[in-house]
Amino acid sequence: MTFWEKLAEASRRNQSLLCVGLDPDPARLGGMPVAVFVQAVVEATQDLVCAYKPNLAFFEALGTGGMQTLLEALRGVPARIPVIADAKRGDIASSSRFYAQALFEAYDFDAATVNPYLGHDSVEPFLEYGDRGVFLLCRTSNPGADDVQGLRLKDGRTLFEAVAELANRWNTRGNVGLVVGATWPEDLVRIRALCPELPFLLPGAGAQGADLGQALRAGLDAQGGGVIVSASRQVLYASSGDDFADAARRAALGLRDEINRERDALLARR
Amino acid sequence: MTFWEKLAEASRRNQSLLCVGLDPDPARLGGMPVAVFVQAVVEATQDLVCAYKPNLAFFEALGTGGMQTLLEALRGVPARIPVIADAKRGDIASSSRFYAQALFEAYDFDAATVNPYLGHDSVEPFLEYGDRGVFLLCRTSNPGADDVQGLRLKDGRTLFEAVAELANRWNTRGNVGLVVGATWPEDLVRIRALCPELPFLLPGAGAQGADLGQALRAGLDAQGGGVIVSASRQVLYASSGDDFADAARRAALGLRDEINRERDALLARR
Repeated sequence: MTFWEKLAEASRRNQSLLCVGLDPDPARLGGMPVAVFVQAVVEATQDLVCAYKPNLAFFEALGTGGMQTLLEALRGVPARIPVIADAKRGDIASSSRFYAQALFEAYDFDAATVNPYLGHDSVEPFLEYGDRGVFLLCRTSNPGADDVQGLRLKDGRTLFEAVAELANRWNTRGNVGLVVGATWPEDLVRIRALCPELPFLLPGAGAQGADLGQALRAGLDAQGGGVIVSASRQVLYASSGDDFADAARRAALGLRDEINRERDALLARR
Repeated sequence: MTFWEKLAEASRRNQSLLCVGLDPDPARLGGMPVAVFVQAVVEATQDLVCAYKPNLAFFEALGTGGMQTLLEALRGVPARIPVIADAKRGDIASSSRFYAQALFEAYDFDAATVNPYLGHDSVEPFLEYGDRGVFLLCRTSNPGADDVQGLRLKDGRTLFEAVAELANRWNTRGNVGLVVGATWPEDLVRIRALCPELPFLLPGAGAQGADLGQALRAGLDAQGGGVIVSASRQVLYASSGDDFADAARRAALGLRDEINRERDALLARR
């Protein structure tokens, strides 16, 4: 089963376009071990999500045991829920090959985020894993995204529009998606117009303050799908007390249902 | 001591602008453990280099023990030789903070390579470690670098020239360098003109086939310094036999001396 099939099945089963980002900050866990915290969040939310997305930075910061901790943290993720490694890797081909091997073989992630700055040959080693998903960074959710991605090209396009069009060209195996911050709904409209077929991973829905309705209106494809809405802090830190897992569940449930309501309302108006 | 002071001191002591990239491919080690192979190369070359540069991809591909293997591999690096983590990281600020913590605290690397695609706030968490070096990817050495970095902006600059100018602006603590492939000498000239003060890390000198003389002519700063020439495969795999360490030494010695000769000849003509 490819990542996309697994994603569609999890999305259908859980009636969800919500991906929970697993970005555990030890300073916010009140002394609880990272793996235990993440396991509890996963247990509390696994019937509400279409995917999980651990950000590797948070595990690498733990030192040499970090990736073992990540595997432990993910132990309770049901096999039917895909896991997207938020890794933002990218290197010259001979090195990217080893990053792809790490993510797709050593850790067996279903998908990964990849940085396009080094060009096609740097991305191709990831794409060669045809059953895995590769989300290219296009328009990231952060305030400084404009510094580089927003630069205006000679032909009138912005850089992120050019990257979106490259993603279409590089998608020879049908396994390319794009990371587009839900924080930029107007840009999302333009990227959807350029890439009607590509799935979008939309971070920024929660703590980063994006408007869900706007993001969905802009991002949904012609079939009313093609988006994964990712939220991390809003779910993980919904409560700083002992009820963090229950609170994470309530936050995830609220987000899932809000996404579904917004989507249904949008589709009803189409 | 800052990274740059340590680098200058190692460069002076070893009379070297050569950085050896530590990119061990298990398929080329004839069954030897990765850490043992790297240790032997380090032991054979430590009086010939100004820095070492392990590429994290090769260690991450080893699985959960990969970063422990990297630490073991580096155990014999003298404290006076700086180590540049070729990590090519970059994420939104709240995540980049954890990547920076991983590289500069958990692993205590002296410097790291960082991808600029996400903009200033994504790079700033690395720059805040004022005593560490941050090499921003500008013009990478690979054939596909043009796909994105070579795009022409509305104002006539290429994207990599815009990134070079951003690097100047972001360099408020004096710890920014640039990665510029030695494979693009003409672009190196333009980037040096834009960034007369920034140190350049020049990969591509060995197996990737760059012309050393051209790269140095283009990259050396006004003082005849400001470049680190990086070679990996040409040194690591100089011999596939039992004499690999001796061969690595000969290759490193040859490269170091060739760089010095070319530089001295260039400075004599200035």
